[in-house]
Amino acid sequence: MSLDSTLHQKSVDLAKLTYQITGSAGSGHPSTGASLVHLISALLYTHMRHEPANPGHPSADRLVLSEGHAVPVVYAAMADLGIHYRDANNDLKPVTRDLAMTLRQLDSPIDGHPNPALGMPFFDAATGSLGQGLSVAAGLAVAAKLDGLDKRIFCIMGDGESREGQIWEAVDFIRDHDLKAVCPIFNANAFGQTSEVSPQQSADTLVKKLEAAGYEVLDIDGHQPSAIVEALSTHAQKQHDPEAAPVAIVARTVKGWGSASQQGNGHHGTAPTGEALDAVLEELSATERQIGAAADTPLKIPMLPADKPEAATHHAVKSFDDALKAFGMESVLEKGKLATRKAYGIALRAAGHAHSNVVALDAEVSNSTGADAFKKDDALASRFVECKIAEQNMLSAALGMSAAGKVPFVSTFGKFMVRAYDQIEMAILSGKPIKLVGSHAGATLGADGPSQMALCDVAFARSFATMRTQTGHPGMVVLTPSDAYQCYALVQQMAEYEGFAYLRTLRPDTEFLYGPEDEFVLGGHELLIEGRDLLILASGYMVHEANRALEQLDEAGIDATLVDMYSLPFDEEAIADLANENNGMVLTLEDNYGNAMGSAVADALSATGDGFTINQMHVKHLPKSGQSPDELLRYCNLSSEHIVQQAMSMLELSAT
Amino acid sequence: MSLDSTLHQKSVDLAKLTYQITGSAGSGHPSTGASLVHLISALLYTHMRHEPANPGHPSADRLVLSEGHAVPVVYAAMADLGIHYRDANNDLKPVTRDLAMTLRQLDSPIDGHPNPALGMPFFDAATGSLGQGLSVAAGLAVAAKLDGLDKRIFCIMGDGESREGQIWEAVDFIRDHDLKAVCPIFNANAFGQTSEVSPQQSADTLVKKLEAAGYEVLDIDGHQPSAIVEALSTHAQKQHDPEAAPVAIVARTVKGWGSASQQGNGHHGTAPTGEALDAVLEELSATERQIGAAADTPLKIPMLPADKPEAATHHAVKSFDDALKAFGMESVLEKGKLATRKAYGIALRAAGHAHSNVVALDAEVSNSTGADAFKKDDALASRFVECKIAEQNMLSAALGMSAAGKVPFVSTFGKFMVRAYDQIEMAILSGKPIKLVGSHAGATLGADGPSQMALCDVAFARSFATMRTQTGHPGMVVLTPSDAYQCYALVQQMAEYEGFAYLRTLRPDTEFLYGPEDEFVLGGHELLIEGRDLLILASGYMVHEANRALEQLDEAGIDATLVDMYSLPFDEEAIADLANENNGMVLTLEDNYGNAMGSAVADALSATGDGFTINQMHVKHLPKSGQSPDELLRYCNLSSEHIVQQAMSMLELSAT
Repeated sequence: MSLDSTLHQKSVDLAKLTYQITGSAGSGHPSTGASLVHLISALLYTHMRHEPANPGHPSADRLVLSEGHAVPVVYAAMADLGIHYRDANNDLKPVTRDLAMTLRQLDSPIDGHPNPALGMPFFDAATGSLGQGLSVAAGLAVAAKLDGLDKRIFCIMGDGESREGQIWEAVDFIRDHDLKAVCPIFNANAFGQTSEVSPQQSADTLVKKLEAAGYEVLDIDGHQPSAIVEALSTHAQKQHDPEAAPVAIVARTVKGWGSASQQGNGHHGTAPTGEALDAVLEELSATERQIGAAADTPLKIPMLPADKPEAATHHAVKSFDDALKAFGMESVLEKGKLATRKAYGIALRAAGHAHSNVVALDAEVSNSTGADAFKKDDALASRFVECKIAEQNMLSAALGMSAAGKVPFVSTFGKFMVRAYDQIEMAILSGKPIKLVGSHAGATLGADGPSQMALCDVAFARSFATMRTQTGHPGMVVLTPSDAYQCYALVQQMAEYEGFAYLRTLRPDTEFLYGPEDEFVLGGHELLIEGRDLLILASGYMVHEANRALEQLDEAGIDATLVDMYSLPFDEEAIADLANENNGMVLTLEDNYGNAMGSAVADALSATGDGFTINQMHVKHLPKSGQSPDELLRYCNLSSEHIVQQAMSMLELSAT
Repeated sequence: MSLDSTLHQKSVDLAKLTYQITGSAGSGHPSTGASLVHLISALLYTHMRHEPANPGHPSADRLVLSEGHAVPVVYAAMADLGIHYRDANNDLKPVTRDLAMTLRQLDSPIDGHPNPALGMPFFDAATGSLGQGLSVAAGLAVAAKLDGLDKRIFCIMGDGESREGQIWEAVDFIRDHDLKAVCPIFNANAFGQTSEVSPQQSADTLVKKLEAAGYEVLDIDGHQPSAIVEALSTHAQKQHDPEAAPVAIVARTVKGWGSASQQGNGHHGTAPTGEALDAVLEELSATERQIGAAADTPLKIPMLPADKPEAATHHAVKSFDDALKAFGMESVLEKGKLATRKAYGIALRAAGHAHSNVVALDAEVSNSTGADAFKKDDALASRFVECKIAEQNMLSAALGMSAAGKVPFVSTFGKFMVRAYDQIEMAILSGKPIKLVGSHAGATLGADGPSQMALCDVAFARSFATMRTQTGHPGMVVLTPSDAYQCYALVQQMAEYEGFAYLRTLRPDTEFLYGPEDEFVLGGHELLIEGRDLLILASGYMVHEANRALEQLDEAGIDATLVDMYSLPFDEEAIADLANENNGMVLTLEDNYGNAMGSAVADALSATGDGFTINQMHVKHLPKSGQSPDELLRYCNLSSEHIVQQAMSMLELSAT
């Protein structure tokens, strides 16, 4: 059993280094790492096909460490294997033992949790908010399947972590899409942060749950090298067998393996230092002798698979009018109006034809969001991923696809996108762009009522528009098209944009305001009417409501300027100039809760010191069902009449 | 089988009325309703103990309709039984057939989805964002158990809906806490919105998954009255058997039951009208004859259980100092500093002793959030609910507890609270207050890195601070205490407040700024230093950093005012006055992404037209790990030196 003794040796070495690294940092989760030493040894030294000097190699097998707090044990292996990181100059360099000892320091790439955006291309996703890794792995597998790559994706999850429902969404998703390249590994070490894991997450129950979900489960001793290697080999064999069920591994492990002082409850997030650390290292040496650890067999990382992904192809995208013709939908133009959610579908379909790396994901509402147009196009259908009613898994899977070079457009009702806000934030932290599309946004949704209306979405998304990612992009660009032409153009921009964007589409039809010759850019705005008394800044549906108000304002002698604020961030200087040209009087209009576009305007203008007066109209109380957008806008004090009233009151005219 | 024939008759009648109601609205989901007619008939007419004239009776059995879009069939039963709603004057009145026909109209309480805040006390929670109902039911059951009430809670979920991971979090939670009063009913009608449900959500797989999770599963024909009644009776018997496993029902049903034209795919969200409606009604009449429907047995709603909940008791709450003494923690005072997360624990413990209805929930991190102090107090431990690592279930369970009269404090890392933003929004829509506590907030978290830092939390929560619920409260009050005394006082305010609040606590210790005599209120702020050159508005940790900057500013000849902005919303007039007293120069400081406190200030001041200059300092790029709050603040350009620099640049002084 020389492979066994060698892997035991490697495991002890990694455990020691893990404690040394976390001891140096004074924090971290070494006891979790210790429960993983044999799994990490078997994976990184004997089984995973990867190139230490090229950790982002597109053909390499991948490891998603869903229980991100366990990362010091992976850093230990990286230091031992010389797996490369990216330094501040973006150069690839091997992680050394010395570098690993800088864990959690401000100027170190050895961050507290895995993060590709912080210098670690070995990882595809930032993890640390639990329960998301298996979905990321599934997304990586979808991309590999589309690219025809024989790539395996290993995902290590904690048992306590597997209480997160998202893991079971991913378990279903993997089965639905037959993603047998994913190898889910549950690290059943029986202890969480504050206490033992629930019997619902015991190894026994995890096995039963996975079997119920249709998996072949390999229930192994996670500190028995040959059992691990055999399980990984079984996965390798079964993954190409069309008749086989997906394989999952439940590895029974010991938290704090190898050192009794670190076992049991109460050792979750603590890193022994000083004498306590010395004692742990001695315990590990005793364990080393006891289990007959001996580096008597060479360990060899297997060769990379031969397949390489083909480069994405890009063709010129058709204009909206031409796309409609190509799709046999010219009649849309005659109507003179179209819901932006439907324009999204047409735009997505055109983008799919133009860019081979565009993929579309939807959560069982593609006939509502518009994504059906993509799904039902035979040439694109293979790139449509039905995620069923599980938004969290959908978003993390999109992150995995983005990490694998795809451009994922992810659609559902804007309201249901809220379900996945943590997953969206983790994707932003990872620096793996996703294009978000929330439909049926705002109060104009109407009949279905507030449980279906996206109302806080702009506030959330705009929060990220106030920060920059590692690539210098805004964390999010928020796009709120008011008409179909604009929506179409913005979707094409999103497809080519290298950052995150959130497109907010509407349920009701809106009249065409623009034509095929109009251009729109991320960060832009559209000056629709130029006046001098009052600057009205409106987004989405409210552009139309503002248009209706203009006539009445004109009658009342108010010469208003109207701008379609379709993007956040926007050109702050240009808006400030327009505000100054309108005596500093600004009225903002949006059909969501506040802390959104109006606040973005207030932020920008109040920083200039030029003395503007900004009134914000938005949804200020809980909406309800109603039969038309107009009814709802009246109920929310956002109708054209309310706009006129507010404008006149701002300008101190009587509203008679 | 006269009960069978009678329930068949009732089911046909409800199906017809459901189609009529949705036909009148021109929208809704009658085919889903039709799949539920037998379950609803058996429940509401023969099994559930409820009083139609008192739908919010605290002793009554409850129905949580998790698949909220099916609500028209419940409205049909309500109209038939005269179950009461609350009108605009808050008076209870029976739902009539005529009223039911106003479904989805603006002035009608018959809203598109169930919502207690929109006039329907029969429901405990707004549903319609899927997958949350079973958690709500579990929360209701926890409350009933605490109150010693023999109350059963029925929860109806869709099969497609059961893809949502949260349902499986609730399944585990129910088992962990032995909440056998909950009767989960899966409506397995095999069709979703766009297509058939996945085999992973088939009735067969649902049965297996529930069995794997430790349930006794009753797999029944959901259109066979006697089978339904028997299953419900089995649940009734087993719920008091301490040896029994929890019971769940998987009901195999037919979407569009009774009318062939509404069956199969493509009839999800469509309501037949006109001739199509007539045809459906004829089909239902044919079904009626075919199954021998006959109202030949009286149906009787069972009597309410005799138990009534005891009224909550309230005692005066101790001061922070006295609480520390009572808990044997006086030594805290000597140190002169304490992390607000720890102050939260002490405050929660004191609130628990003062108010018998205060309950605490935490997601396996109570030793980090401070909630341990409550959990480890023997007098309070029974009111501590360990939710394990499943934030979504935790928040919806808290909603259920709130609906049952409890005052739930829910804690986890602020970052992980993001996981449950949709559940929080649904609680706000429901009008059932929850006290949210997000710990380790902001960039000062330090070593663990950005995957553990709450950075967008203030933006999200503030979005709701810009709207009002049906009770006139802000959707959310955001509280960002800077010291332990303030935190303690605000927690006591939260315990007595009837709305939603989000308390944001810090990982590192902060020095005491206040004392036991200082008072703090929701909506308040604290003027710490009065100057005349520059108004510095800071929140949380940044109050301390601003304090450090003041000395240097003073040396530079800048006489700054410092305000601790611990609450959003705040007194806008008072802040505007202070800004005016400081030449209109305002600098805001916070350790999260933007669109937060600074934007709230910009919103308020820019509306006055007084011409302020507002510079906002906040986290503007992705943070990383670092070893101390100071390091992180420097990295994020938020150190006292950066504050001084920004202040001097605002006032156009050279920073030499």
